[in-house]
Amino acid sequence: MTTETVQINPTIIKAFVHSTKNVLSTMANTQCTIGKPYLKEKNTSHYDVSGIVGFTGEIIGSVVISFTSEMAIKLVEQFTGENYTADSDYFADAVGELSNMIAGNAKSEFGLTAGISIPSVIIGTNHSVARMSDVPCVVIPCETPYGKMAVEVNVKCVG
Amino acid sequence: MTTETVQINPTIIKAFVHSTKNVLSTMANTQCTIGKPYLKEKNTSHYDVSGIVGFTGEIIGSVVISFTSEMAIKLVEQFTGENYTADSDYFADAVGELSNMIAGNAKSEFGLTAGISIPSVIIGTNHSVARMSDVPCVVIPCETPYGKMAVEVNVKCVG
Repeated sequence: MTTETVQINPTIIKAFVHSTKNVLSTMANTQCTIGKPYLKEKNTSHYDVSGIVGFTGEIIGSVVISFTSEMAIKLVEQFTGENYTADSDYFADAVGELSNMIAGNAKSEFGLTAGISIPSVIIGTNHSVARMSDVPCVVIPCETPYGKMAVEVNVKCVG
Repeated sequence: MTTETVQINPTIIKAFVHSTKNVLSTMANTQCTIGKPYLKEKNTSHYDVSGIVGFTGEIIGSVVISFTSEMAIKLVEQFTGENYTADSDYFADAVGELSNMIAGNAKSEFGLTAGISIPSVIIGTNHSVARMSDVPCVVIPCETPYGKMAVEVNVKCVG
């Protein structure tokens, strides 16, 4: 795994840490405690709701922001003021919007020229988002009053 | 839904139809019959395996290529010559690679300046990929000897 470790730019991980804390705090009035980021080696994490945003340009890959259903519903309620169920279109839009803001704010901080795709939102009990074997994946664990979430950064710099 | 219909560029949908048929045929020796593409209005489709590729540039959004587990395992076997289970890293890599080729070949055909992200692969029984309400989503249904799959094109042109 040595070559993967070398490819990871700590500035990018720090930018996602800051961005996650800021977006949750300012947009959803939710404080989160960030755990120690670690390298994901196996596709063993399972979640109920994930927002995925792709990156292209000097940095390529994706960021995946994953939650349990309960956590995502609470967070969306804090963000929108409404108690949507996970099958609502508004719920998916809200998760997508939060994911988009986390990706966009991080991009502003790390300063590379990159495009970000429109978010995709996965709804499905106990799904996993597989990492591609040629892209390192750093997991940023986050704890909030509503439960745990994870920000998985699957990117490599090509600029 | 009228405004959405107007935004959809038939050249893009045709490019994904051609690309899907070509990639399956040439890379996985699998013929597929394309059904009539339709506008997805509700997040009601559920799958077991999805490959997602994001687009940025003159076209933004994503393409989601979804399968049942059985279908994906058969297709990966045709593509790689190996019978991987859905929890294998090689399986996810193969689904990602097929998704990447379908997105990349379509992009070459429709000719817009666009970046494509590294694929994300979702593994989870009966998950759905929500569409964002401000991006039209056209579903291209495909039938193969191994089962049904769907190519969902969630893009809008901004170039």
